[in-house]
Amino acid sequence: MESYIMSLIAVANKPGMISFATGLPDKRLFDVKGLKEAASDVLDEKGGDVLQYSNTEGLLSLRQKIADRCQKELKFKTSPENIFITNGSQECFDHLGKIFLDPGDGLVVENPGYLGALQSFSVYSPKFSGVDLNSDGPDMTQLSEFIKEDPKLFYSIPNHQNPSGVSYSLESRKQVAELADGNECIMVEDDAYGELGFKGRLPAVRSMSENVILTGSFSKIISPSMRTGWMVVPDEMTEEIRTSLEAACLHANSFSQAVLDKFLEKNDLNAYLKPIRAEYERKCKLMLDLMEDSLPDSLTWNEPEGGMFVWMKSPEGTNAKKLFEAALERKLVIMPGHPFHVRGGENTIRLNYATASDEDMKKGMSILAKACSDVF
Amino acid sequence: MESYIMSLIAVANKPGMISFATGLPDKRLFDVKGLKEAASDVLDEKGGDVLQYSNTEGLLSLRQKIADRCQKELKFKTSPENIFITNGSQECFDHLGKIFLDPGDGLVVENPGYLGALQSFSVYSPKFSGVDLNSDGPDMTQLSEFIKEDPKLFYSIPNHQNPSGVSYSLESRKQVAELADGNECIMVEDDAYGELGFKGRLPAVRSMSENVILTGSFSKIISPSMRTGWMVVPDEMTEEIRTSLEAACLHANSFSQAVLDKFLEKNDLNAYLKPIRAEYERKCKLMLDLMEDSLPDSLTWNEPEGGMFVWMKSPEGTNAKKLFEAALERKLVIMPGHPFHVRGGENTIRLNYATASDEDMKKGMSILAKACSDVF
Repeated sequence: MESYIMSLIAVANKPGMISFATGLPDKRLFDVKGLKEAASDVLDEKGGDVLQYSNTEGLLSLRQKIADRCQKELKFKTSPENIFITNGSQECFDHLGKIFLDPGDGLVVENPGYLGALQSFSVYSPKFSGVDLNSDGPDMTQLSEFIKEDPKLFYSIPNHQNPSGVSYSLESRKQVAELADGNECIMVEDDAYGELGFKGRLPAVRSMSENVILTGSFSKIISPSMRTGWMVVPDEMTEEIRTSLEAACLHANSFSQAVLDKFLEKNDLNAYLKPIRAEYERKCKLMLDLMEDSLPDSLTWNEPEGGMFVWMKSPEGTNAKKLFEAALERKLVIMPGHPFHVRGGENTIRLNYATASDEDMKKGMSILAKACSDVF
Repeated sequence: MESYIMSLIAVANKPGMISFATGLPDKRLFDVKGLKEAASDVLDEKGGDVLQYSNTEGLLSLRQKIADRCQKELKFKTSPENIFITNGSQECFDHLGKIFLDPGDGLVVENPGYLGALQSFSVYSPKFSGVDLNSDGPDMTQLSEFIKEDPKLFYSIPNHQNPSGVSYSLESRKQVAELADGNECIMVEDDAYGELGFKGRLPAVRSMSENVILTGSFSKIISPSMRTGWMVVPDEMTEEIRTSLEAACLHANSFSQAVLDKFLEKNDLNAYLKPIRAEYERKCKLMLDLMEDSLPDSLTWNEPEGGMFVWMKSPEGTNAKKLFEAALERKLVIMPGHPFHVRGGENTIRLNYATASDEDMKKGMSILAKACSDVF
């Protein structure tokens, strides 16, 4: 599988380049002042202790806050004993692959699915099955068939999926939970975007089945550079997860954990998130309006209800890579959708509305319109 | 292999417990004020950019500083392109295991060797060969024999080894480098303690052979909670290392990287390290004096020239685990040496002189003396 993510970040960072390509949140929304205070506070209060080695599981008070959040917002009860802090939620996929996947083992993924996780799991050479996504969740006929083949894991993003923006309906969540309950196959529920819904959120699949490992992250809502994610795992897996994390890195960055914990102590998360969600909703609408005004009728797209991405399709049979190349020549980076797929997707493109400023979004969309004229 | 490290940290953190057991540096030596200023400075200067996603390789200016340090102190020339920042140097071992070791592949380790690395490599089920350590380096006859069996890696700590405190002599380094040059087997040179020599340092084995991957860390000298380590790898491996790191966690914590980079910009590392080395030398001497005064003649130990550990032996045929248990009952934690070994070592114990305060060291040594009376 091609290594797109980081190379696109590198290209997108070049001077003069506008990017709709990466999964970067809007850096203008980071609370620089609040995090500076939190860092200063923990160093004042804890001194050398906060700079010392820590435990593999992660900071207890932070895990308690995550457990509380799970109960309040994701609608399931868990405890800090079931929560492990990781170097971003990306690290969860590496460990789940390492623990559960031997070469040739079945792994069901969404088609399209999150590229970073596909890359992470690929290292363990599983047999990928890609379940197509409808507008309200996975194709249940396909998913049931795949589950019959006894895969080890089903990896999914039920909220504002990266790349497609699809969210599972309540009915779809129930059906997926029923499948998880009735089979050995463990569901990995990646909730990286769950806090970024414009209209609230539905309960996690984890609230309907215990055969689920839920992963989460502060990257999209507070800061990605602090690489702090987590997973919530069933009782019987805690020892194996702990051992695997310890062997790989002893523990995740506990200075950042303490800073985030302090930040959450001083800020009500819902109050903090309200303007962030509103800003993403505004930017999403801006991008959709610009697309409506500038792009040819032959292109279609969805209307996201959260997250960071618009999912665009050029006509069947066309190859979106050409549009990518035409845009790149004009200094706009967009993300071809093909690499997110186990099969198909040549005519898809992912556009990020979170990263760019309003001005860059307008400039970028005008470039994209010209690139469309070049190609179609 | 038993998972000692983190469980001992957990025990050692219990109230009223004195610990000589873990590998924790002295938290009184962390520059809390300096790191607080550095964190504050990078947030003021870089704002949201320092909280955003970053590149897999790590912060360029920090990698440049590490390259400069390699040239100045470790006596070999390298460039930022060959350096990768990781979540502590522990993460290097996981990736090197993942990339180089298939089940049954040969891995030569020191006997005794660093337990954390042994645990990390164990995940990939190599065939371990343990080369005994003399007071000036590995037993070269054994090492030559093992290398003939075409192992993939030879993992070693040439400076102030954890657990034994052994440092390779210049002659020993030359011999090891010659072996590395003449064979496919890659040497992994773990330099976690290289900056903590009481009497300066010898050139790295990497300065004498290019068939070496060198790993380093800020954990022992600035802060372990910031989990910032690195590896210096040959040109032909950079792409594979980069891909492996990206798949596992996208990139290491770049907020901590920026804080450490700023700290190093504002502090001359040698000037900063001078009092730290002096304090460890003082504490080492204090522990040795206390041991001399309190412990029975049947116990022997080395005189470390750096690092954090004294390596103690009870008479051949005795089991140090009994001493461990007797000490634990009296609320002192010591580290049995057996788990560091591929074979033997039942009569060995590792004592850390860095963690405890002077007062605790005195109390702890008096407990150890009583535990010796209980057992021997």
